[in-house]
Amino acid sequence: MQRFVVVLFAALAVSFPARAEEGMWTFNDFPSAKVKQQYGFEPSPAWLEHLRLSSIRLAGGCSASLVSAQGLVLTNHHCARSCIEQLSTAKSNLNATGFFAKTTAEERRCPAMEANQLVEIKDVSAEVFKATQGLSDQAFHDAQKAEFARLEKACATSDSLRCDVVTLYRGGQYHLYKYRRFQDVRLVFAPEEAIAFFGGDPDNFMFPRYDLDLSFLRLYDEGKPFQAAHHFEWSPAGVKEGELTFVTGHPGGTSRQLTVAQLEMERDLKLPRSLMRLAELRGWVAQFRTKGPEQSRIGTDLLFGVENGFKALKGEHEALLDKTFFASKVAAENALRAKVKADPKLQGAYGGAWDAIANANEEFKRLRRHYSMLEGLGGFSSDTIGIARTLVRAAAELPKPNEKRLREWSDSKLPGVKQRLFSEAPIYDELEELTLTFSLTKLREELGPDNPVVQRVLGMRSPSELAKALVKGTKLKDVKVRKALFEGGQKAIDASKDPLIALMKEIEPDARALRTRYEEQVESVVKKASEQIARANFLIHGTGQYPDATFTLRLSYGQVKGYEELGQPVPPFTYIRGAFNRHTGRDPFALPKSWLNAKAKLDPATPFNFASTNDIIGGNSGSPVVNQAGQLVGLVFDGNIQSLGGEYGFDPAVNRAVSVDSRAIMESLDKVYGAKRLIEELKGPATQATPEAPPARGVNH
Amino acid sequence: MQRFVVVLFAALAVSFPARAEEGMWTFNDFPSAKVKQQYGFEPSPAWLEHLRLSSIRLAGGCSASLVSAQGLVLTNHHCARSCIEQLSTAKSNLNATGFFAKTTAEERRCPAMEANQLVEIKDVSAEVFKATQGLSDQAFHDAQKAEFARLEKACATSDSLRCDVVTLYRGGQYHLYKYRRFQDVRLVFAPEEAIAFFGGDPDNFMFPRYDLDLSFLRLYDEGKPFQAAHHFEWSPAGVKEGELTFVTGHPGGTSRQLTVAQLEMERDLKLPRSLMRLAELRGWVAQFRTKGPEQSRIGTDLLFGVENGFKALKGEHEALLDKTFFASKVAAENALRAKVKADPKLQGAYGGAWDAIANANEEFKRLRRHYSMLEGLGGFSSDTIGIARTLVRAAAELPKPNEKRLREWSDSKLPGVKQRLFSEAPIYDELEELTLTFSLTKLREELGPDNPVVQRVLGMRSPSELAKALVKGTKLKDVKVRKALFEGGQKAIDASKDPLIALMKEIEPDARALRTRYEEQVESVVKKASEQIARANFLIHGTGQYPDATFTLRLSYGQVKGYEELGQPVPPFTYIRGAFNRHTGRDPFALPKSWLNAKAKLDPATPFNFASTNDIIGGNSGSPVVNQAGQLVGLVFDGNIQSLGGEYGFDPAVNRAVSVDSRAIMESLDKVYGAKRLIEELKGPATQATPEAPPARGVNH
Repeated sequence: MQRFVVVLFAALAVSFPARAEEGMWTFNDFPSAKVKQQYGFEPSPAWLEHLRLSSIRLAGGCSASLVSAQGLVLTNHHCARSCIEQLSTAKSNLNATGFFAKTTAEERRCPAMEANQLVEIKDVSAEVFKATQGLSDQAFHDAQKAEFARLEKACATSDSLRCDVVTLYRGGQYHLYKYRRFQDVRLVFAPEEAIAFFGGDPDNFMFPRYDLDLSFLRLYDEGKPFQAAHHFEWSPAGVKEGELTFVTGHPGGTSRQLTVAQLEMERDLKLPRSLMRLAELRGWVAQFRTKGPEQSRIGTDLLFGVENGFKALKGEHEALLDKTFFASKVAAENALRAKVKADPKLQGAYGGAWDAIANANEEFKRLRRHYSMLEGLGGFSSDTIGIARTLVRAAAELPKPNEKRLREWSDSKLPGVKQRLFSEAPIYDELEELTLTFSLTKLREELGPDNPVVQRVLGMRSPSELAKALVKGTKLKDVKVRKALFEGGQKAIDASKDPLIALMKEIEPDARALRTRYEEQVESVVKKASEQIARANFLIHGTGQYPDATFTLRLSYGQVKGYEELGQPVPPFTYIRGAFNRHTGRDPFALPKSWLNAKAKLDPATPFNFASTNDIIGGNSGSPVVNQAGQLVGLVFDGNIQSLGGEYGFDPAVNRAVSVDSRAIMESLDKVYGAKRLIEELKGPATQATPEAPPARGVNH
Repeated sequence: MQRFVVVLFAALAVSFPARAEEGMWTFNDFPSAKVKQQYGFEPSPAWLEHLRLSSIRLAGGCSASLVSAQGLVLTNHHCARSCIEQLSTAKSNLNATGFFAKTTAEERRCPAMEANQLVEIKDVSAEVFKATQGLSDQAFHDAQKAEFARLEKACATSDSLRCDVVTLYRGGQYHLYKYRRFQDVRLVFAPEEAIAFFGGDPDNFMFPRYDLDLSFLRLYDEGKPFQAAHHFEWSPAGVKEGELTFVTGHPGGTSRQLTVAQLEMERDLKLPRSLMRLAELRGWVAQFRTKGPEQSRIGTDLLFGVENGFKALKGEHEALLDKTFFASKVAAENALRAKVKADPKLQGAYGGAWDAIANANEEFKRLRRHYSMLEGLGGFSSDTIGIARTLVRAAAELPKPNEKRLREWSDSKLPGVKQRLFSEAPIYDELEELTLTFSLTKLREELGPDNPVVQRVLGMRSPSELAKALVKGTKLKDVKVRKALFEGGQKAIDASKDPLIALMKEIEPDARALRTRYEEQVESVVKKASEQIARANFLIHGTGQYPDATFTLRLSYGQVKGYEELGQPVPPFTYIRGAFNRHTGRDPFALPKSWLNAKAKLDPATPFNFASTNDIIGGNSGSPVVNQAGQLVGLVFDGNIQSLGGEYGFDPAVNRAVSVDSRAIMESLDKVYGAKRLIEELKGPATQATPEAPPARGVNH
């Protein structure tokens, strides 16, 4: 449920009064009164703060939560699966066997994981608007970028802080999110993938469901377990049908506030193209994995990502192809535009915004192939290519003043860049060759064999021949080599004979030119027009709305509830017995040995997974489900197939979040895994009193 | 350029006056006067008859032509590539080496090829309309099917005749096409695939182009070369820019006369789904082929078909996503409907047809997954599964009276069924396992693991496990076993323990039920409504139209002409020197050794491929291009990328047919292949005088 395909450009705000239970609310604008009206419970500022400080973001694209005072973190297995795979070897496949550190000393550091805790939110809209006042196009873009960089740098006073200016309501507001940053995150416990992802791709995004999709991590602070001032208490009783549930987490992105022109481009261009590419790559990886047990192991993580992304995008595409739904989007936009048009002042200030976006779209259509292949590296996909691009760009960008750099190179982004760049995560030659051959083949296919860049890159070689040579010739797998190139700056890059560095240097002028054209003619136009639409929308519809998801912390409320499918009721709970009924002994319906051995001990009536009406989306994976006492009752790991349309709109009748029940977690930790150490820690005393360092200064709105 | 994905249901006629050079005209309704007006040449009935009788259809989905009095046939390499692969072995790969029979005795029979020569066209509209008068739904469907079977049986008085009732104008007319049938077709010559398909998938559907995409076959009649009364003379001079060209061939199908509801379903459902499936299968096959040289060899034909289909459907999808183009379709339909509505008589008779089709569409959407997986065998793709289905259906259908059988089991279809069923074409276990695993995986994915059929089929097994067991257990690769089961009828099928027969028996009740529901609620409704729209269209727009393509013989006229692309002129001819310029030495841009060796001898200025404005589509592959003297000047093998939109409409500015120039054929046969025997036969005397047996009774309109 992580978002797989990067959405290339920002869009804009057309909001409408949220339907009951719809909404991914920011913590500084949560509709407590509305919840009270519907459920009789009004979240207090202190209650909200406790939830916020107990919530964790995994920078790779997931959510999580603190579940003990010693920095223990609960998230999904699929959110830790890259780490689990990176800690595995041909002889010890932790995805297959599971992992349990019996002592703190046995906990193993994830090579490339970053966790964030949101300590402060500050509204910086006034500063941002002031910096861009009266500007447009490239000047607008540069000024905004510089202001973002300035605000972030002033905020991030140490590497243990991370500050991001976040665009909300697609430009209606700008907030500065300040996180405590953890780069030492260790693996504590993971069950076998066979039970974490029981049912595999066929059951993915489906309900009823029987998955123990969890892992435990621990945050470390200067080599010691992080002493957390806030964490979620484990609910002793679990949750009941109809009970009020909150989900706090980091929905990655939604597109509910896009214009019709933008939605059409999603429906007709971006989604179909992404789906075809993913479908083909899925075939490559699936067959690659049949070549042997080691290929199967090293290809699993990639296959999971591809299949997950494919199914998610397919659901989104279907939502947009629904004619009734799309017509409702058109009608809403027309209504807003009519209101703007009716007021000459509004029309003068904002009336041109929709057409400006539509025109930028047309320009993007002309750019798209080349931009995504060369600047987006769609024509050059592999871990080491990514490293080469990072090194080439670092040499060019870092000597520039902070505010003049490309957005992703501002000072506040550097700790994350370095962590990824210097990660010891294994890189597999055979997989590198596979993904490189695939993407070079797509490069030639998309741009054509007669394209000058394609001809310079391939020369007389075939894509697979070039891929083989690059993988064989590069030294970038060696972290020491990367460090030397990074620290050596432009001189080292100029002198480097590494074939991947050479390749990235070769395409750099074309990639840069495309980036500039994109920023000037697409991104800046869309950003500015989006701000205009957002303002018009605030003026006409007022506040009381929630912004599109942006991988920032959000809170949704709802209840445990089933739904109807093809005229049949789907009850909200599944039970452990159901997993045994579904067991065929064949992957992905094969329960692990540990579960088969424990069958007699396990209570078959223990609730396993449940559905709730919380409004979530990809990125919410690993979110805690908490009751009104603030206790953890579940762990979000998926949405049902109907929830995929949640990218564009929320349908309360059928859109459901799917979670692991806290009772199944306890039952299996106890009866299957004998994980006493964990159980005791989870049942430990709640700690809500003392503030943590750096002190949470509360929500600054 | 063969059509790869079977279009599931018939549609209907909204015709408009054809644009200049647009049109795939039937031979009994060719607009000779219009050609005269534009080009000063008026095709005579005798001239048309000569073209018709010199034209050949390859039943597998291609076109061809007679080029000598001894039954020599010219078609594309890619039209014979299945045969070429079937005649290959691990040690002798004829696709790689090419093939040339130095004597008639060395010519090798293709295991599963059927060729047809159109000897008569008869209008049977009156009979068909009479048989269905006043009927609707299932009764309409059954009566029409029975009348088709009756007409075809009465016509096909021997196995060497093939008779098909053809639906034209989507029900506006029904014609009986009578063919002479050849099942003994032998391979005479094929160049290396490296030059036949030079540029491979990247260059497919592209122009400029440098392909020698040809093969020579020979028709045999009772074991001897067929003595052809008509054949195309070889042009000594070739063709010039601007010269009038005719293409006679068998366009497989177009959808220019679909209703808007049908086009929407193509755009939003059928094409995207087909594209995703093909993309994934493409990945499977591409990676399968990397497992070793033998896997590479046996997987080539499948990969070619998949990539060709993918690129073609992608082009079609893009055409429908063009908003201006689609709007023109909507406007045309609205105009016709408005005219019908304005006349109470027309409205009463035909006004409901569009909604009837839209409703049938909705029903089809509900059926589609299950229908395509179980009845369409999308969940069970492999050669041997096809054989098993044929045997199970034969036992059930053949005892029924001819007119009560499923349409594809009528007596007139039997010779074709038997040829395929008893073909000695090799079947490769590893490829069977691949396609079966793929399709069983899709079966589970599309219908879900909880679907009862899926559960009965898979039981506790995984798709790959079941596929392996089926391939290992079946005896259907043995033609003797198939014959015994075919001749043994229902008793033999009931007694068979073959696992594939058992599997097809297992799904038969579900598949039959879906077929019945489809025929009753979709097919019959669409057929009847299509007839109504076609009649309304004739009444309002008159005749002078051409019907959508139906894999029946059509004649198109045009001229040799370049076009503009991205503001640059694309000249109509390429030359042999261009192929050498494009040579990189790496597949698919590696010229074969024979060409490299002959480089000094070859005249680099020989025209190689050319573009013309003839209106063609998939199925036209292998069509001759003839000048007004009826001489062969080229061999159609492709259309440019812009021609793919020809599925839905013809754009004279950029839609181009792409052909091998007859001069390049002669030059390479002489200088590269030293094929004197062929050259002499091609230059042999023209023979248009004596009638052939069975005598051509002319066009009976």
